Amino acid sequence: MSPRQILIPAAAYPRVADRLGASGHELEVLLWSTDGVVRPDGSPASDVHPEVAWIAIDLLFGTSFPAYVDALLAPDTVQWVQGCLAGTDGPLFQRILAAGSRLSPSDSPNAGVAEYVMSTVLQLVHGGVERVEAHRERRWAQVPWREINGMTWLIVGFGSIGGELARRARAFGVEIVGVRRTAVDDDRADRMATMDHLHEELGGADVVVLACPLTDETTGLVDSRFCSAMRSDAILVNVSRGPVVNSSDLMAALDAGELATAVLDVFDVEPLPEDSPLWGHPRVVLTSHVAGAGSGIVPRGDDVFIEHLDNYLSGRQLRLEVG
Amino acid sequence: MSPRQILIPAAAYPRVADRLGASGHELEVLLWSTDGVVRPDGSPASDVHPEVAWIAIDLLFGTSFPAYVDALLAPDTVQWVQGCLAGTDGPLFQRILAAGSRLSPSDSPNAGVAEYVMSTVLQLVHGGVERVEAHRERRWAQVPWREINGMTWLIVGFGSIGGELARRARAFGVEIVGVRRTAVDDDRADRMATMDHLHEELGGADVVVLACPLTDETTGLVDSRFCSAMRSDAILVNVSRGPVVNSSDLMAALDAGELATAVLDVFDVEPLPEDSPLWGHPRVVLTSHVAGAGSGIVPRGDDVFIEHLDNYLSGRQLRLEVG
Repeated sequence: MSPRQILIPAAAYPRVADRLGASGHELEVLLWSTDGVVRPDGSPASDVHPEVAWIAIDLLFGTSFPAYVDALLAPDTVQWVQGCLAGTDGPLFQRILAAGSRLSPSDSPNAGVAEYVMSTVLQLVHGGVERVEAHRERRWAQVPWREINGMTWLIVGFGSIGGELARRARAFGVEIVGVRRTAVDDDRADRMATMDHLHEELGGADVVVLACPLTDETTGLVDSRFCSAMRSDAILVNVSRGPVVNSSDLMAALDAGELATAVLDVFDVEPLPEDSPLWGHPRVVLTSHVAGAGSGIVPRGDDVFIEHLDNYLSGRQLRLEVG
Repeated sequence: MSPRQILIPAAAYPRVADRLGASGHELEVLLWSTDGVVRPDGSPASDVHPEVAWIAIDLLFGTSFPAYVDALLAPDTVQWVQGCLAGTDGPLFQRILAAGSRLSPSDSPNAGVAEYVMSTVLQLVHGGVERVEAHRERRWAQVPWREINGMTWLIVGFGSIGGELARRARAFGVEIVGVRRTAVDDDRADRMATMDHLHEELGGADVVVLACPLTDETTGLVDSRFCSAMRSDAILVNVSRGPVVNSSDLMAALDAGELATAVLDVFDVEPLPEDSPLWGHPRVVLTSHVAGAGSGIVPRGDDVFIEHLDNYLSGRQLRLEVG
């Protein structure tokens, strides 16, 4: 029997070569690039029938992700694919599932997403932009500012991102309320609540962070009713997926002063179209789907692949798997 | 014997009235404003001979701090004064000490200083200003960014501010090295070092935070030699006092690329003179001595006064006292 083939992007290979070599499993590693598939010694691979494929984050930094998915599905032999994102709702991931392969998401973006939320909320609450403007104008602006210490933050969808965020925010003296579909205890939060009590919880929150997956239940979750349950001085942060927020309802609620500010990193259509009214809304802070693009996503993604690969090849359960 | 008199600014009285009333000590509270000294019922106080005075933060928000110090020292009866800042090197505090009174600093600014450092470093490392500029230009800028996760931060002067900062930064996966004059164990840091090994430690730090008091030893601490021991990609943050940094040496080192960026909140002369070359230096991030001016300074300052007052009136040791 020939060894089991693992297809990985050539760009990612140097980072994991040692660990693949020391894995203890009999493997044939195949390196993919737009030039073709080669063995680690550079010789062309003639018989390509991968059982496993790794969608390393390198593919998403460039434009070769679709071509890689074509290549990994072509032989119709792939049994398990390790992805590089928390969400698997993208069309290429859906193609892999439709082809009958198992698919693992990755929690590698999540610590970065938590940093993004902390950084963005601190900048907004402390007036970081105003400080930079005072500096540029050579103005000594000794103005008091608001601390996040003592605030209450509501995290809607309290999973891996929520946990990373809670750890950081609680160190600042922020009280964390986590919201999930079902009632669970979770000592990463100060208190847990269920989705059917969401609207009651909204009124107590200084900051509401959307960190849930996109599902039928969460599509359009933030609508007029949701916004009107928020406090007029509250901040909404969306690091989930665009369709979780009804943008028209949100902008109307911002205009009416039902909440203070929305921080949006994700949108219905990305890149956000030039003519979207969100770009120019005075109460929207907008970034270009960068929350997960922190530098740590690369080493953390490598770690998840190596961890899962060992479990997969040993026939053990995978920590993260779709479905 | 008449009750012991406590002089406090009238503006701060409503916040502590209940707790003073419930203190269990026999007290005569006198309320000071620029209109004079009155009793809590509004009647004029004729015989003013305070044993205790509280410099509440309210005085520093306005311009009446010097007049208050004149008033509290005039009868020559004050035995103990509670201040509102961590540092007592300012001339008005020095006047109180010179008059023979005991003086307590306050750690009420410190949690805010820690927030300021986190916020400012995150904004700088993540490119928060560049994100705002991309937004203003309606530019979809999906660029990777650097995390603080995995960094090493060196905190020079590891006291109350250092501890508050360490707690927050460690929750992000930052390794904290604390530096003090003498060798001590401190589990708020990952590792402690002494000042005589400072220059060896500087080369390992992504961020160096100055959080030491201004003393003969720390005056001019950051000079050419200090800067050249730093890493070329490192950030220096000064939330201590201006004279801890030799600005000319620092600017020369920044120009030479010996460190990447300096975040300065304190200066030799404040407000920073309009013609200071620091204002326009491209590698300086400059704020107007605001690190301690977070909203929590008010309630935390009230708490310290009430805590210390009870200890003073009971003849117990004060947690914070100069000298």
